[in-house]
Amino acid sequence: MKQDIKYNDDTFTVKAYGAKNEKNQELVEMDIERPMINDNEVIIDVLYSGVCHSDIHQVANDWDNTRYPCVPGHEVIGKIVKAGSKTSKFKVGDIVGVGCMIDSCQTCAQCKNDEEQFCTGPKGPTMTYNGYFGDPDSDFNTYGGYASHIVSTEEFLLKIPKSLDIKKAAPILCAGVTTYSPLNHWNVKKGDKVGIVGIGGLGHMAVQIAKAMGAEVTAITTSKSKKQDALDLGADAVLISEDEEDMKANQMKFSFILVTIPDPFDVNPYIDLIAPRGSLVTVGLLAPYKEPTNNMTVAMYSRQLGGSLIGGIKETQEVLDFCAKHDILPEVEMINIENINEAFKKVNQEKVRFRYVIDMKS
Amino acid sequence: MKQDIKYNDDTFTVKAYGAKNEKNQELVEMDIERPMINDNEVIIDVLYSGVCHSDIHQVANDWDNTRYPCVPGHEVIGKIVKAGSKTSKFKVGDIVGVGCMIDSCQTCAQCKNDEEQFCTGPKGPTMTYNGYFGDPDSDFNTYGGYASHIVSTEEFLLKIPKSLDIKKAAPILCAGVTTYSPLNHWNVKKGDKVGIVGIGGLGHMAVQIAKAMGAEVTAITTSKSKKQDALDLGADAVLISEDEEDMKANQMKFSFILVTIPDPFDVNPYIDLIAPRGSLVTVGLLAPYKEPTNNMTVAMYSRQLGGSLIGGIKETQEVLDFCAKHDILPEVEMINIENINEAFKKVNQEKVRFRYVIDMKS
Repeated sequence: MKQDIKYNDDTFTVKAYGAKNEKNQELVEMDIERPMINDNEVIIDVLYSGVCHSDIHQVANDWDNTRYPCVPGHEVIGKIVKAGSKTSKFKVGDIVGVGCMIDSCQTCAQCKNDEEQFCTGPKGPTMTYNGYFGDPDSDFNTYGGYASHIVSTEEFLLKIPKSLDIKKAAPILCAGVTTYSPLNHWNVKKGDKVGIVGIGGLGHMAVQIAKAMGAEVTAITTSKSKKQDALDLGADAVLISEDEEDMKANQMKFSFILVTIPDPFDVNPYIDLIAPRGSLVTVGLLAPYKEPTNNMTVAMYSRQLGGSLIGGIKETQEVLDFCAKHDILPEVEMINIENINEAFKKVNQEKVRFRYVIDMKS
Repeated sequence: MKQDIKYNDDTFTVKAYGAKNEKNQELVEMDIERPMINDNEVIIDVLYSGVCHSDIHQVANDWDNTRYPCVPGHEVIGKIVKAGSKTSKFKVGDIVGVGCMIDSCQTCAQCKNDEEQFCTGPKGPTMTYNGYFGDPDSDFNTYGGYASHIVSTEEFLLKIPKSLDIKKAAPILCAGVTTYSPLNHWNVKKGDKVGIVGIGGLGHMAVQIAKAMGAEVTAITTSKSKKQDALDLGADAVLISEDEEDMKANQMKFSFILVTIPDPFDVNPYIDLIAPRGSLVTVGLLAPYKEPTNNMTVAMYSRQLGGSLIGGIKETQEVLDFCAKHDILPEVEMINIENINEAFKKVNQEKVRFRYVIDMKS
């Protein structure tokens, strides 16, 4: 992809791959015009960009809120090529990461508490793509990492620890923090029996992270073919969720279960696996469950069902450092941006093993 | 009701009000035969017995597990009239309480942890009624407090603090601990914004208990007619759940919401009221919710939905002592046992203000 920036009067234009509108969802190369950066913002030359299931949901307008044209990508690693005059922590030439957010009010209680993802300012958090600059009617959408360059406020940049392979690290910025955050907040610790449901892009990070936290990890999957993969990632055991006897044998076993299934499913069979006073947290599903939750099963053992989305910027830095410390990396398959539509299809057909990362210099 | 015990060889017979079978659910006076007590058990002359919504569910076989004949009643206050030879903490003549359980294995990890309600012994906890003595095919059901006498192991007896009015205290043994336990385990404390949904038998206890814990309490009800009641009980505010604007104005307000609605309902509108990382716990509903939970709303602010049933014996004693200390009593309407079928109807029609208590000497 062409990497030159064309500077206009108050804007600049770069190349990107995006969906033009709801009827033309195929990603095509396009010029995108962006407002000139503010003093606290930077322009980043994108090197690597992970492909997240939510990129596909957003392009397809599955959440009924897509702002077209839509340029996805919120697992971005790149190099700063221009820095606003009031930046101080980062400088031109630095390798940085950008995750799901590029800005927030930074003054509300949630932001002050390092949970910018819950920002209760007038705009809420500004998402890396499908957000907007200025007011909601602004012509300036935010655009993600399927582009030659992206923009972020300095406060939302992540340091990439030197020991992390930058070709592979991009998915830590979403898949990593999305799984680390609930494991961290629900206080998973040494010796805990933890179940990870779904061994894909999110789940394969969760197995590694939970293991590094000291938990005894069971990978729970419908797919017998993922059994060896899960063990290779460090899982202590694998439970095939379609095996009713095995499910019965694991009743009340897990103090914490993380579910990473991205499409509507019935949560009820998994509730039986939770220990008394234990929790199950679903990440990735941004929709209703398939069936009503049976509160009888929940109440009988004072169980809890939670949900979680991403994490704050401080926590995203934490997971990058945690992965560097514990030698954790996503399993990635590198693709060229020209093959992005095919990659989307393969993710939908569950034909990607774990995670695609786009080499943006391709 | 006749209060004499007829002693047989290995059993004894007492009078009770129970449902004969699924087709004859009207409660009628009957003789029930019980196994002679063990060394660690006592016979209690029932003085007062609360009417809980679950009594009605159980008699109607709503949970598909009713053992007929069914004598309900698990909010019992009475006087010990016979004590097994190995009892030591209580003696004949003592006024005691019996809640939802009368025994458990007392050796599993859950029992050792004072959570007998989760007993993982071979039988699980023995419920005050609709349980059984010995093995599952035993002819000896457990029978509840709608009777002249009941039986409990000594370990499951509760001390009734002297300052509590024993005519009114019975509902603390179920409604009290059922609401106290989640408020306690989810760590409700001074200054927390707490919502209590449903201002009936459970909810009116929850408002008083949460208030005594120092929370800022909002009563949430469909019923405008309960507004003054809720304020009288100590609620700081009342939110009418059918008022969409008021619901919107209270979005993200509550760090903890306790829902006491006993029949299937849609939990989704209440999720919006939960603060980031806050929890909602449903007690009383032992069935699926009416609609699938939207995990989008849950995940967006890392919320949690829990369930809770009763509490352990230690916690039941705790709530009795807590109520005595804070001058909390259920609002009760005394009835005679002869009027129990009419009372059931009124509970179902939501015509009871808060809680009926049967004066068993009637």
